[in-house]
Amino acid sequence: MSGNTFGKNFRITTFGESHGKALGVVIDGCPAGIDFDLAFIQSEMDRRRPGGTSIGTQRDEKDRIEVLSGVFEGKTEGTPIALMLFNNDQKSHDYSQIKDIFRPGHADYTYFMKYGIRDYRGGGRSSGRETSARVAAGALAKLVLRTKGIEVSAGIRSVKGIRVEGEFRPPFKGPLYTISNEKDEEILSLIDEAKRNKDSLGGVVECHITGVPAGLGEPVFDKTEALLSHAIMSIGAVKGIEFGLGFKSSELYGSENNDQMDEKGFITNNAGGILGGITTGEEIIFRASFKPTPSIARVQHTLGTDGIVHELEINGRHDPTVLVRAIPVVEAMSAMTILDLLLEDMKYGG
Amino acid sequence: MSGNTFGKNFRITTFGESHGKALGVVIDGCPAGIDFDLAFIQSEMDRRRPGGTSIGTQRDEKDRIEVLSGVFEGKTEGTPIALMLFNNDQKSHDYSQIKDIFRPGHADYTYFMKYGIRDYRGGGRSSGRETSARVAAGALAKLVLRTKGIEVSAGIRSVKGIRVEGEFRPPFKGPLYTISNEKDEEILSLIDEAKRNKDSLGGVVECHITGVPAGLGEPVFDKTEALLSHAIMSIGAVKGIEFGLGFKSSELYGSENNDQMDEKGFITNNAGGILGGITTGEEIIFRASFKPTPSIARVQHTLGTDGIVHELEINGRHDPTVLVRAIPVVEAMSAMTILDLLLEDMKYGG
Amino acid sequence: MSGNTFGKNFRITTFGESHGKALGVVIDGCPAGIDFDLAFIQSEMDRRRPGGTSIGTQRDEKDRIEVLSGVFEGKTEGTPIALMLFNNDQKSHDYSQIKDIFRPGHADYTYFMKYGIRDYRGGGRSSGRETSARVAAGALAKLVLRTKGIEVSAGIRSVKGIRVEGEFRPPFKGPLYTISNEKDEEILSLIDEAKRNKDSLGGVVECHITGVPAGLGEPVFDKTEALLSHAIMSIGAVKGIEFGLGFKSSELYGSENNDQMDEKGFITNNAGGILGGITTGEEIIFRASFKPTPSIARVQHTLGTDGIVHELEINGRHDPTVLVRAIPVVEAMSAMTILDLLLEDMKYGG
Amino acid sequence: MSGNTFGKNFRITTFGESHGKALGVVIDGCPAGIDFDLAFIQSEMDRRRPGGTSIGTQRDEKDRIEVLSGVFEGKTEGTPIALMLFNNDQKSHDYSQIKDIFRPGHADYTYFMKYGIRDYRGGGRSSGRETSARVAAGALAKLVLRTKGIEVSAGIRSVKGIRVEGEFRPPFKGPLYTISNEKDEEILSLIDEAKRNKDSLGGVVECHITGVPAGLGEPVFDKTEALLSHAIMSIGAVKGIEFGLGFKSSELYGSENNDQMDEKGFITNNAGGILGGITTGEEIIFRASFKPTPSIARVQHTLGTDGIVHELEINGRHDPTVLVRAIPVVEAMSAMTILDLLLEDMKYGG
Repeated sequence: MSGNTFGKNFRITTFGESHGKALGVVIDGCPAGIDFDLAFIQSEMDRRRPGGTSIGTQRDEKDRIEVLSGVFEGKTEGTPIALMLFNNDQKSHDYSQIKDIFRPGHADYTYFMKYGIRDYRGGGRSSGRETSARVAAGALAKLVLRTKGIEVSAGIRSVKGIRVEGEFRPPFKGPLYTISNEKDEEILSLIDEAKRNKDSLGGVVECHITGVPAGLGEPVFDKTEALLSHAIMSIGAVKGIEFGLGFKSSELYGSENNDQMDEKGFITNNAGGILGGITTGEEIIFRASFKPTPSIARVQHTLGTDGIVHELEINGRHDPTVLVRAIPVVEAMSAMTILDLLLEDMKYGG
Repeated sequence: MSGNTFGKNFRITTFGESHGKALGVVIDGCPAGIDFDLAFIQSEMDRRRPGGTSIGTQRDEKDRIEVLSGVFEGKTEGTPIALMLFNNDQKSHDYSQIKDIFRPGHADYTYFMKYGIRDYRGGGRSSGRETSARVAAGALAKLVLRTKGIEVSAGIRSVKGIRVEGEFRPPFKGPLYTISNEKDEEILSLIDEAKRNKDSLGGVVECHITGVPAGLGEPVFDKTEALLSHAIMSIGAVKGIEFGLGFKSSELYGSENNDQMDEKGFITNNAGGILGGITTGEEIIFRASFKPTPSIARVQHTLGTDGIVHELEINGRHDPTVLVRAIPVVEAMSAMTILDLLLEDMKYGG
Repeated sequence: MSGNTFGKNFRITTFGESHGKALGVVIDGCPAGIDFDLAFIQSEMDRRRPGGTSIGTQRDEKDRIEVLSGVFEGKTEGTPIALMLFNNDQKSHDYSQIKDIFRPGHADYTYFMKYGIRDYRGGGRSSGRETSARVAAGALAKLVLRTKGIEVSAGIRSVKGIRVEGEFRPPFKGPLYTISNEKDEEILSLIDEAKRNKDSLGGVVECHITGVPAGLGEPVFDKTEALLSHAIMSIGAVKGIEFGLGFKSSELYGSENNDQMDEKGFITNNAGGILGGITTGEEIIFRASFKPTPSIARVQHTLGTDGIVHELEINGRHDPTVLVRAIPVVEAMSAMTILDLLLEDMKYGG
Repeated sequence: MSGNTFGKNFRITTFGESHGKALGVVIDGCPAGIDFDLAFIQSEMDRRRPGGTSIGTQRDEKDRIEVLSGVFEGKTEGTPIALMLFNNDQKSHDYSQIKDIFRPGHADYTYFMKYGIRDYRGGGRSSGRETSARVAAGALAKLVLRTKGIEVSAGIRSVKGIRVEGEFRPPFKGPLYTISNEKDEEILSLIDEAKRNKDSLGGVVECHITGVPAGLGEPVFDKTEALLSHAIMSIGAVKGIEFGLGFKSSELYGSENNDQMDEKGFITNNAGGILGGITTGEEIIFRASFKPTPSIARVQHTLGTDGIVHELEINGRHDPTVLVRAIPVVEAMSAMTILDLLLEDMKYGG
């Protein structure tokens, strides 16, 4: 633990405080000989970047990837790949407002209780900016998965309870990357209203993984759902996850929920592509619930390091919702998990 | 991976097919000098055992724990503790009905695809019986946690959509161990009906963990929610998990969802006791969704190892729902996860 | 850590105090479909057993393997394999002599300092009997390696400084399993003399591994020598290890030590089959140095748990040397290490 | 595996090819609140640097450490610490001589067999330059150990068989950092002669660790010797290791080798501070044997990627021996191993 490493076979270690000199990720266990498509990796970074969408914050983080090792003549070498994001503007921040105050809904209080130290620079490791390193590594995992015909796609299923129906047919389109765009107007006006009210919104992201062969996943403790849940629940704002019919399956009879088979295979996919923790060969389907962004400009009451109650308004430009930017993060964590299971399975002849 | 080991510091490895000679668990990393209360551990086993409740199956599995190592003069030694459950009746089963057929909703098909081998003896490692080893190890984890004032309790929050309201005040009472007993009659008649219809039911188990100090959990990938989700989603029938307000928080404004603080600490606990993956010192709260038991006696269509569609009626005595027996399993996995995080934290002076 | 698990892909966890109810090993990650040759595994156990050779102790430990899980219809299932050794005579021992005294050269003192508990029953986990679980698991690893043409063999290279020359041509013959039998008489008389003097002897075991493909081993920290050293130095009485020319290469010029190549490959194998931590395809060769058995019947001075100096004579039948019985242990640890690296490599297409 | 991560609790991941853009290390699990003495860390780097001693190569690698994360206001934060070494001169090299040829004694051939890729830039990950990242992380481990009164020191015990006697009393003095300087002249003239003959030399480094409490180390597979051997044998040129009397103890009687105790504790320390894998509280003592540097300018025969035998003279400035520069590497690996065991033990109250 100590928590900054993920995966067993495709194994990443991330580092960097949100407002420190740099963030980065070291990837160990990537197969040798993979075409290292830096343009694709950078394009994934851009999907996560604030300002990449009209509803995000207006900060101009570049998130430009630098490759320090593990790639030679355009191909992965089998050695560790270090990808870096340097912060050019780290000195310009003013933290006086939050220096000694625990922001509600943030990790400020809990980190202070854990380490006895207050790194007040924008959340340190608990900042959403930490996820940029995941997206970089996840983009490489996607490149490896593609050589096996596996694709990972996510879109927005609901925003503050407004649920979007319709078939899951990626790629999804902006500005919201909803699964169908039928309610985009309604949602955008809700987001706009929240912004005006100095408030924020959450929602649900749905992810599908196609092309996964039957037989991935490890029995008992490392079931595919268990590892994907570990991966997705490690994303800051996620507070719930469900596979296939998920919570709804708890309301059905077994005879309704079981996926029967005919000569073509499974007739339904209520299980979301996983039975007994092992993939069935059907699409893997899950949904992750994001809480509303905790950074809001409304007055809130909270404690400071002095043990006294303070009134706090968090100024600055905040995303009213992180949902759109969370999509590539969900995809990245999923891609790395599936690649890890694939490599695990290959040990035994795949 | 290969999936039969759980935990890093309090580390268990389980083994045993459901109808093999024995099931067991080896626990490595349990502190030395803990009073090994075998009667308590056995009582936890009895909570999981079929026939332990009026609604369970009528099979008479004894689940009697045998201690093979690691305990000396009534105390743990710091060396690995092996706990065994011998199957006395392993030879009496008749598997002819399911020998070459993949039961819907079970792992029969996926295990066959993974290993190329069909162990048709009652599900092998994917059987619910596998969880008995978890309960044994979890009971020991509970004993260790108690020396720190930490308690883990779970109860039934809903059955097939019938939700039970009321405050969470363990211990819960039978026959259903619902969080309040107000709807027990309604639920029991629903279960009875499902039984008559050869069908099965799922539901939702809620778990609270009290006495957890602030500061447990590891940043980024090993957040408390991530590890608990890994733990709970590894239980066979679980298809969803949520913390605090969970999926509902995706429907709230940030100003509604954030937990503000006053001089006494957190005013609300929408976060379910975890912020940024680190415990807040409030109760940890989560809910796990169980699908209906896949073993039903109704006619179902499925494939066999011969690639041909078969009609299948699974005879024998099946639980119409595993919910009640799942409660100690949820508690066991939670207890081990929290103990693991506690030991991790103690490295740094706790 | 906590130390009772070895390996990453072929992963064993052992348990059991030397005089407890049972010893055992759980093997996770063994490929499915391997012929489980129990007779071979038992024959490996017999090589390690005291009384299996004329120079060993006369105790009659049966070391009869019982298989509890993971094997079905004669083949491995891919699920964890639990192998057990039950102690039938556990109650007959008299420990009064050593109950409160730390035997010199044993782990009695250090275990007491670590755990604060004195399990005086014959050494507990630090007993040589613990290695029986390793031999059982290692025998299975050998079976898997054989399907790939890899063989592991060890023999005695020296006893108390009497070095045996000659080519390494297994299988070696009794009673000493020396690499050549030319000095057996001299060595046997030395052992006999030590026995009469209530003393003990050490020596050097040499191990060769053939059929290993080039390219196994992981760069930097998990070099083949590093993992094999970890494996072999974890055997109780081993205090040194060297590969290829080993310590002698520190006395040569680079021009003498470098293995040059011609069209048939490496001309020499001073490196012992490993360069930069990765196997060359040549024989892997190493030697492990065993200290003399610490259990001797001569008077020794030592502390007791009372902090007072005691005179101690350890009565009972002790091996004057563990060397012969250590051979299958060295082979077992080597086989598991190489299999682990082989599985690691297979992830990437082998 | 995949080999670029070391340690469990104080856990490092290194990356970087010797002639790539940068080398670096990410340290996870370092306690929070440690004074981050950058000057000390840099001084350790300087000990390893070529040109830091009169007998090393004359290249001018600066090895200047840059801290990218995990340190705030002069103290460690508990978050991952990334330390970087940028290569400023990476473009100036000419590899034409060795581009397609496997240098004898190097990992060129084995890496090519493993990855199917030839990174001909000076050895890539198998270069000695890789150890600079270890020294940086090890220096931090030393800082943590000092807060507990633990010190790690190494010196040269022999060069090409010329053994230096005398008590181990660090700090040792240049130019050779031999344990006593009595034979420095003889050794220096031997090194000089080897240089003139375009040849190289190996030797033995001895390391002592003082202040280690009794009770560190984990039973069975993670014995202190096993973990230290793993650590030290992972250093490129090391081909042997021994603890306490080491190989010599195989030539003694048990009555000579056992460390007896009197009221003041152990009378001798033949065991090198470890019994049954657990530390005794005495000094930990081991010796590591280094082969002569494989890079020599004499004509050698070897294969190329074309499968044809070539004559090779490796020009450029090479160290006739890496021994002096290896000293801080041995210390670094030892420091990290002991710190890892210390943190492991603290989980249980230390």
